Order: sequence, then structure tokens, then C-alpha cells
Amino acid sequence: MPAYKAPLHDIRFLMNEVLDYPAHYKTLSNGESADPDTVDMILEGAADYCENVLSPLNQSGDEEGCHFDNGEVKTPKGFKEAYDQFVMGGWQGLSYPEEFGGQGLPMSLNLIKSEMMGTANWSFTMYPGLSSGCMNTILQFGTDEQKQTYMPKLVEGTWSGTMCLTEPQCGTDLGQVKTKAEPQADGTYKISGTKIFISAGEHDLTENIIHIVLARLPDAPAGTRGISLFIVPKFIPTADGGVGERNTVSCGSIEHKMGIRASATAVLNFDNATGYLIGEVNKGLHAMFTFMNTARIGTAVQGIAHAELSFQGALPYAKERMSMRALSGKKDPDKVADAIIHHADVRRMLLTQKAIAEGGRSMIYYAAQLADKMTDALTRGDQAAFEDYDDKLGFYTPILKGFLTELGLEAANHGMQVYGGHGYIKEWGMEQIVRDARISTLYEGTTGVQALDLIGRKVLLSSKGKVVREYTAEILKFCAAHARNKYLRRFAWDLTKLCAQWNTLTVRIMLAARKDRDIVSSASVDFLMFSGYVMMAYFWAQQAVVASEKLEAGNGQETPEFYKAKIKVADFYFDRLLPRAQGHAESMVTTSRTLTSLPAEHFSFDY
Amino acid sequence: MPAYKAPLHDIRFLMNEVLDYPAHYKTLSNGESADPDTVDMILEGAADYCENVLSPLNQSGDEEGCHFDNGEVKTPKGFKEAYDQFVMGGWQGLSYPEEFGGQGLPMSLNLIKSEMMGTANWSFTMYPGLSSGCMNTILQFGTDEQKQTYMPKLVEGTWSGTMCLTEPQCGTDLGQVKTKAEPQADGTYKISGTKIFISAGEHDLTENIIHIVLARLPDAPAGTRGISLFIVPKFIPTADGGVGERNTVSCGSIEHKMGIRASATAVLNFDNATGYLIGEVNKGLHAMFTFMNTARIGTAVQGIAHAELSFQGALPYAKERMSMRALSGKKDPDKVADAIIHHADVRRMLLTQKAIAEGGRSMIYYAAQLADKMTDALTRGDQAAFEDYDDKLGFYTPILKGFLTELGLEAANHGMQVYGGHGYIKEWGMEQIVRDARISTLYEGTTGVQALDLIGRKVLLSSKGKVVREYTAEILKFCAAHARNKYLRRFAWDLTKLCAQWNTLTVRIMLAARKDRDIVSSASVDFLMFSGYVMMAYFWAQQAVVASEKLEAGNGQETPEFYKAKIKVADFYFDRLLPRAQGHAESMVTTSRTLTSLPAEHFSFDY
Repeated sequence: MPAYKAPLHDIRFLMNEVLDYPAHYKTLSNGESADPDTVDMILEGAADYCENVLSPLNQSGDEEGCHFDNGEVKTPKGFKEAYDQFVMGGWQGLSYPEEFGGQGLPMSLNLIKSEMMGTANWSFTMYPGLSSGCMNTILQFGTDEQKQTYMPKLVEGTWSGTMCLTEPQCGTDLGQVKTKAEPQADGTYKISGTKIFISAGEHDLTENIIHIVLARLPDAPAGTRGISLFIVPKFIPTADGGVGERNTVSCGSIEHKMGIRASATAVLNFDNATGYLIGEVNKGLHAMFTFMNTARIGTAVQGIAHAELSFQGALPYAKERMSMRALSGKKDPDKVADAIIHHADVRRMLLTQKAIAEGGRSMIYYAAQLADKMTDALTRGDQAAFEDYDDKLGFYTPILKGFLTELGLEAANHGMQVYGGHGYIKEWGMEQIVRDARISTLYEGTTGVQALDLIGRKVLLSSKGKVVREYTAEILKFCAAHARNKYLRRFAWDLTKLCAQWNTLTVRIMLAARKDRDIVSSASVDFLMFSGYVMMAYFWAQQAVVASEKLEAGNGQETPEFYKAKIKVADFYFDRLLPRAQGHAESMVTTSRTLTSLPAEHFSFDY
Repeated sequence: MPAYKAPLHDIRFLMNEVLDYPAHYKTLSNGESADPDTVDMILEGAADYCENVLSPLNQSGDEEGCHFDNGEVKTPKGFKEAYDQFVMGGWQGLSYPEEFGGQGLPMSLNLIKSEMMGTANWSFTMYPGLSSGCMNTILQFGTDEQKQTYMPKLVEGTWSGTMCLTEPQCGTDLGQVKTKAEPQADGTYKISGTKIFISAGEHDLTENIIHIVLARLPDAPAGTRGISLFIVPKFIPTADGGVGERNTVSCGSIEHKMGIRASATAVLNFDNATGYLIGEVNKGLHAMFTFMNTARIGTAVQGIAHAELSFQGALPYAKERMSMRALSGKKDPDKVADAIIHHADVRRMLLTQKAIAEGGRSMIYYAAQLADKMTDALTRGDQAAFEDYDDKLGFYTPILKGFLTELGLEAANHGMQVYGGHGYIKEWGMEQIVRDARISTLYEGTTGVQALDLIGRKVLLSSKGKVVREYTAEILKFCAAHARNKYLRRFAWDLTKLCAQWNTLTVRIMLAARKDRDIVSSASVDFLMFSGYVMMAYFWAQQAVVASEKLEAGNGQETPEFYKAKIKVADFYFDRLLPRAQGHAESMVTTSRTLTSLPAEHFSFDY
């Protein structure tokens, strides 16, 4: 398993030079404390914790997995100690309000911390990650009393949280949720039902686990309009903030999974468990959606996390493994053969990984700024600004989640491929990255669900293509602003064509959908992937422009090679990855009949 | 785990209607016995064995894996009994000479049998599969005495064989092989060295294991010109064909792998083991290459095997799982939601799987005919015909191996994706298919190695593009011959353009390579994938033409829906998968500088 090394050089380049985080933080009401020194301290501290505590547990956690015994779950060796260090370091509270014991820093810092943690050890990171979902729910919809009861412990990390949505018969289609909530005379509810796929649903890391549960009141309307949200703690909190009576929610089993084996995925049985309504009755699903964007960005991070880790594993191997001679002549003449990094096709795989990891990172860090601004607008009570950022983020998010996790999986597979047959052997750890990465296109909404959300909800329904027009206008403005930059010139024509094509495709699908509703689904994943490739092209162009300016200004003298590499990877991206967008463009505009006209019973004639 | 059902309808369609196997068999010197009744009996018998014996052991074999204890390997529960049935059924000898106890049938039948076995249980199928490599070596290069000693037992299946090529420091680059062979006074050799990744290298299925070992004589020239081949039996055969003294080859360990966990992958230590030279001294690697094509077609089969099995798993789930409503209106109005097969994007995944499985199958079955013809020419001593078929197969093989295993992996992933989060859970068996499929792009030469073989050796060096010209001429001839077929008309223009483009790309790379040798490597995988998409398009067009003719002639009345489905999947392929070829075309012609100009030490600045 590759030992994780936090890519701080790249992280700082993006934060300080491409996206100007210092200026961004100055615009936020909670940004003052995120001064450069503090940010630096956080980056260094997180890197240290991730490299030295989390990374060494990544492979052993996979090998050992979680243990289930009679309702109890034991996490792999070392996880409890690592989690205690996480709590001691105050890492859980980084971006949560000071009134609950947090440090009140912008959410973006939390995301960057999560990226490092997730790259070092994705399974581990899911435990505190799910707590964020729970905390966000309580913060946004909880009563003051609920906040006082749960937030301090959750922010501290001594309690953790979950999101209990999925049931055996439904995941995406939450309108089918059956879990019941019976109102009691004392204002509480009795919750009964079975929830599955509950990450961090049971474990030995914290004193208490706070479940946020989707359930249905007896008189609730059918479907999505009859779902309410409940807080169901594993142990009922006592008045003094301690842990009281054991609630009747129990872990029936944990799943045996392809990967993220150190993350406990629980089946939870609620058997007349005591629950507390949070938010409005029957508005539970709506509440879920309000912060689903930020949750999904957290999952999009997985794409770059696994691309980065797999690249970190593949690069040294490619430099060490000797095989054959480079076609253009011996590169290591004293050795029995050339290192495989000298073979162009091996470089193709490494550069693909690098382009995905660093290109994806810049996309995520930009989205993190939007999330900061959105949160800030909410804090300031500026509803118009909030909605504007929410729209932007709503457009970004399914692209990031769908596109980056698909590409992250590809990148993880390239890393294995660089190792040849050795990549298939567990010992090297490269195959674990593929197994861990594989969940990312499935949970928090599959790629298909993201794609339908993007084109159906965000592009066609809510904005009639306006978001695409606005975004492409931004790209064209960027091109115009840097028209004289010689590196950008190389990309400007591609970007301009792609912007036009993106709008045309949007309009074509919109028009076609009037007569052919299925085209929205049949075109969706191609549309998402096309959008992702264009978006990543824009972010690579931005990186190349900044790098070239630094080089020209002589500011990059300390590490000119870093900037030169950025330009070369941007070239690679435009030459070798961006052409894929055309296949998606061509594929998406064909009639949906190609997909829908074969009767279901004629898919097979043998089984 | 999906229970395997042999797709006999499709297999018969390809054999009898598309590729006219009955006529093909009549042209072969050993084809007479492959009359339609015999072929049918073999298909039915193989299907029965695969469905009822091998398929039920697929998931349990993965869960249990192989056991290693003190040099001995125990295969999972049920494998020995299944293997005994395989031996009893005479399945190993299907296509091996009658003089050694085989049935002397054409090789293509063996391949079709292997496809069924491999789809039902790839791990199991590797044990007899490796024996084929060993048998082919002995048949082609062994002395009469060696044939008499080893072939009867190998053909029977009571002994098995291996190919021992890879060593810790080298896989692809076999010139680095270090294993030593010291000549002895009695004409035998003492073999010493370590071989890794030896599939079926140690197990409990057979009385004896016959290793074919690449090793180097003391005075051998360095590199690939100094490698010889040796037979190293686990137990030295006795004069009466029994099992004698234990040889000093031992299994040091078995690998812990991502998948194919029921297939034992051994580290073999040769410690002055007795070996027998086979073939000429120092010509070992050349000997390996002579039948590498057929071995690689065997691996290409894995692409369609996993596409097929994953499709068989995904299809019923897509018909049963209810989630959301189809965009074009309720399809299952009485149910709480529509079955997910009614969502166009789910169909996209299923149709992709089906197009890969059936399109790939037709490509393989065509290649199997070429292999039959090549073997037949060899038998008849017709060197010119042999070389012609060898050239054709040499062009086909890396495309089949590289392209079909990449697409097979994609198809296996789609099957998992159809299951959503459930696909990630071991219980369903869908993730096992992905893990098992993942090896296919790595062993028997990675995709990159296939691609370099294709463009470097088969297209540019040996034929200067002639193979592409010939193959595209065949496609154009087909288009002309069916110019009036209304279904073909829809594809003819695409095929014609693609043929021209394929030749142009070949010439462009050939010309560019004069100044830029690295472009052969930098363009290789894109060239391979482009070639694969065009080739598969041709085979889908052929299937559509046959299907439409059957429908028009009224011959398809028994199952007109089968033929209609063929035409629809061909449409799908041209509309939705073939456009990807353009991304590959655009990517491959960029200068190799995009890949080679970044200095190795500047790939990273953090680690």
C-alpha cells in the first residue's frame, strides 16, 4: 500500500495562486480567523495526522475488516486510537460553530482536511464524515434544545452520527420508505423498521451514535410527501449531557463488501425505538435535499482521493521497475532495461492519473469556495445571494460527484495497470484502491442518478439551460481576459468550440425532450460526462495560465519546474483526455428509441 | 451470484447462421467428425456441466479461496469432484489428437467449450486451461518420446500442466529471465530459480503437474536469444507412465489476489530440479511466440465471459427492482414504482453489456475459425496457407485480447452499477465478477503490451499497414455485397468512413514514426481501441444482415423476436458505442511529446 504523502505543494498552489483563498476568506463573515498562518498550520497538522496516523492503518484495516458479534461492531486494530487522536486534535469541530465547541472556520477547510484524510484512509474517514451529515441536519433543522443536546458532543467527536435513509426495498426512490413513526403522548415517537447500508451505523469509536432517520407517520401521505425526519440516539442523552438508557435500535449485521472494508456498513433494526422529530412533519425529504449538494461534494472528493493515492503508488513503481527499452532509445543504458516510466504508454496512464487528481482537485476547491459563500449568505440572511450560490452549486455538484468518481475509478485502475500482474496482488495495495474507489459511483446517488439530477432538474427543469449559458459565458470571459497569454491561446479555440457545443447540445436535448421524454434519461450520463470534460478543461486552462504568468513574472523561480509541469499536464489533458467529450456528444443526441424500443422480455432468449 | 445459463441460442445463431460452422468444418481435415449432431451434443453436454457443476462452485470458490500449507495447495470445496467429472467426461481431450486419447475435434470447439466453462467459473477453468498451453508446447516441439510420456495423461486430464515464464524481476521482458539450467551427463538438466505468478502451479486436482519452464543455459547469450524451454515434472514419470520420484520443484506460497481467488497462483522454487530440454537450445522464446496467439484468444474469451455473466446477473435484477417512474410515463402502473429496466439509462448499461458479450462472441468465433484453418494448414503441410492465417490471426489476436478484456471489465462494472449499492455487497456476486475480470487486462500481456504488439509488430513492422488494408477491403466488400439490405444501408456509410479513417490513421502513425519513434507507443492503446470498435462494428453489421435476411425470408418465424433484437442491438452499438472510436482517433495522432516531454523527476513535487 502506498504510504500517503499530502500533496501540499499542489494544495497551496490551488489555494494561494489559482483560487486566491486568502482573498476569498476575507470576504466571509467567519473568514477572519482563516488567516494564512492558521490555514498553513491546519494544512501541516492535517498532513501530519494523515501521513503518520491514518495512512499506516489503511491496508491493515482492509485486511482485518470490521468484526460483528451479537450486535456489537469492533473496528480494526488501531482505529480507536486513531479516532481518539482525531478527537484530541479537535479535528471534528474545525468548521462547526464556536458556540458548540468548534473552531468556526469556513467549510472549505473542512473539505480540504477531509480530502487528505480520505486519501490516507477512506474507510476511517467515513466515521467522522457521516457525523457531518448528522450535524448539518441538526444545525439547520434542530430546535435550540436539540442543538444543545447533541451538537457539543458531536462537534467534539465523542459522539458520532449517521444518516438512515435506505431500506431493503428502496435507495434512490425514498418515497418507498416504510419505517414507521408512532407519535407518543409525551411528544416523542416510536420508530420501527429496518434501515440498511448505514455507514458508521454501529462501531466502537464513540460513546454514543446519533441516527437521523427517515420515517413515516401513520397518517402521512404516500410517497415522498409523507416522510419525516427523526433523531434516534443509540443511548438516550441524560439531562447533564451524558449517556443514558440504551434505545431499542440494534445492529442486525454488517455487510461484506468489495472494499471500504474497515468502514462498518450496518443493518439497523428499529424496534419501537424512541425518536425525536426534527424539522417539520412530512418535510423530511425536502430537508435532506437542502444540504445534499454539500454531502455529494464530500463524495466527489473520493474521486480525487483515489486518483491521488493510486498515482502515489504507481509513480515510484514506474521509476523502479525495469522492462524493455524505450522505443526512442535506451534511457537507462547501464541497466538491464529501461524503467517503465520511459515507455510512452505508461506515461499515458500516469499522466491520466495526475490530470484527474489535480484537475479534479481544482474543481473541488472551487466548489468549496461556492459552498463557503452559500453558507455565508445564509448566515448573513442574504436570501438572494444564497439562492444564487445554491443554483451554481446545484449545477456543479452532480457533475463533480458523477464525473470525478467515474474518473477516479479509472485513475485507480490505471495505477493497478502500471504494476502489471503485481497490481492484482493484495500485498502492493493497488487493488485495494480500486475496490475502495468502486463504491464512489454507487452511493450518495449513482452516476445515473447524478446525471438525471443534472440534466433533468438542474439544467432543463429549473433553469432551461441558463446555468450552462452562464457557465460558458464565464469560460469565454476567461478566454478573452487572457487572450494574449501564449499558453491559453493553445486552448482558447478548443474551449470556445466546446462552450458553443455545450449550449447547442443542451438546447437540442431540451427541444427533443418535448416529444421524447426518455431522451432526458438516455442522454443523461453522456451529458454529465461531456460537462465534466469541459469543466475540467476550463480548470486545467486556469492552472496553465497561472503557471505561465508565474514563470513569465519570474515569480516561479523557486520551483519553475512545478509550473512547467502544470503546463505540460494541461497540454496532455487537452490532447489526450478532452477528445473523449466528442464521443459523448455524438452518443447523447441519438434518439432514445435506440435504448427504449427493445421490449424488456427480448433482452435475452436463453434465460 | 448469478447462476450461469449457457446462451445456446446465441451460440447456435453465430455458429450456424452467421459464420456457417457446418460448412467451415467440412473444409478441415479433422472436421468430418464435427458434424452438426456431434457439435450439438457437445454444446448441450458442456452447457449441462457448466450450469450444474461449475456455476454453483463459482461464489463458494471465491469465498473459500485456495489453502496453502507447507508446500501443498488445497483447492476449494467441490473443485476436486468437479474436476473428476471433467476428466470423466473426456472434456480435456476434445480437440487433442486421437492418438493420445483425445477426440481430435477442431480447436474452435474447445474454445467454445472454454467460453462456457469460463463464464460459469473462470477460476476453475484456469486449471485445465493452463494444461492446454503445456500440451500445445509438447505437441509442437516435443520429441516423440516426450509426446508419448506426457500427452496421454495430459489429454486425459489426470495430469495437468503449467507455463513457467514470469520471475520476480520480469514478466513482459522475458530477456531478463535468470532461472538456470545446468546440463547433466545423462542429457537432462538441473533447473534452479524462482518463478512467480504460476497459475495452477500447485493444486490437488491431478496426480502430477508438468511445468514448461523458461531457463537459461550457462553459456547462453544474454537477453531473449539465450532462453531455452524445459519440461520439469512435479513427479518424474515412470517407464510405465506412472508417477515416480518427487522432483525438487516446490511451491513456496500462493498469492493473495483481488479475484480469481479459487485459482492457485503459485510461487515455484526450482532447486536443482530435473528438467528435459524441449525444442532447440536458445530458441525457447521463439517457440513461446508461435502459439501465443491461440493462448491470447483464450484470454480474450474472458472479456465476453464476464460481460455475459454480469449481464445474466443484471438483467433479472433490472426487471425486478422497482424504483421511480419512467420519464415517459408509468410502465408498471399497479406497482409502487417501475422496474428499473424501464429507465433509459439502465437500458444503456444493459445494452452495453449485451453488445459487448454478443459482439465479442462473434469476433471470437470468427477468430476460432481462423485458428482452425491455421492448424489445418499446418497439419496438411501447406506452409503458405499457414503463414497467411498466422498473419491474419496475428493481427486479430492483440485486438481481441486488448479490446475485449477492456470492454469485458467495463461490462462487468455496468452489471454492478445496475444493482446500485447492492452491487457492492459480496452476497449478490456482482462485485466478484468485476474482481475476476480485472486480471484479464493484466495477464498474458497487459493491454499496453497487446497494443504495442498490434501496432508495432503486426501493423507497422511486419506488414507496413497491409493487414489493415486487407481487412478494411473485406469490410468494404461485405458492404458492397449487401448494398441493397436496408439494415446494412444504415451502417454502410459509417463502416466506409471508418475503413478510410483506419487506413489513414495507420499511414499517419507510420509516417510520424519515422521521426518520432515514441509515437508507436503513445498511439498504441488508442489505435488498439479504435481497431476494436471498428472490428466489432463490422461483426454487429454482419449479425444485423443475417438477422434481417432471416426475417425477410420468413425463416425466422420461430423466433422473429430474436432477430429483431439483434438488429436493435446493432443499432445501439452504432449509435452509442461506436462514437467512442473518434475520441481514440483524435487522441492517437497527437505528438508523443505530450507524453514524453515531462521529465520523470517532475511528475511530482511532493513525494
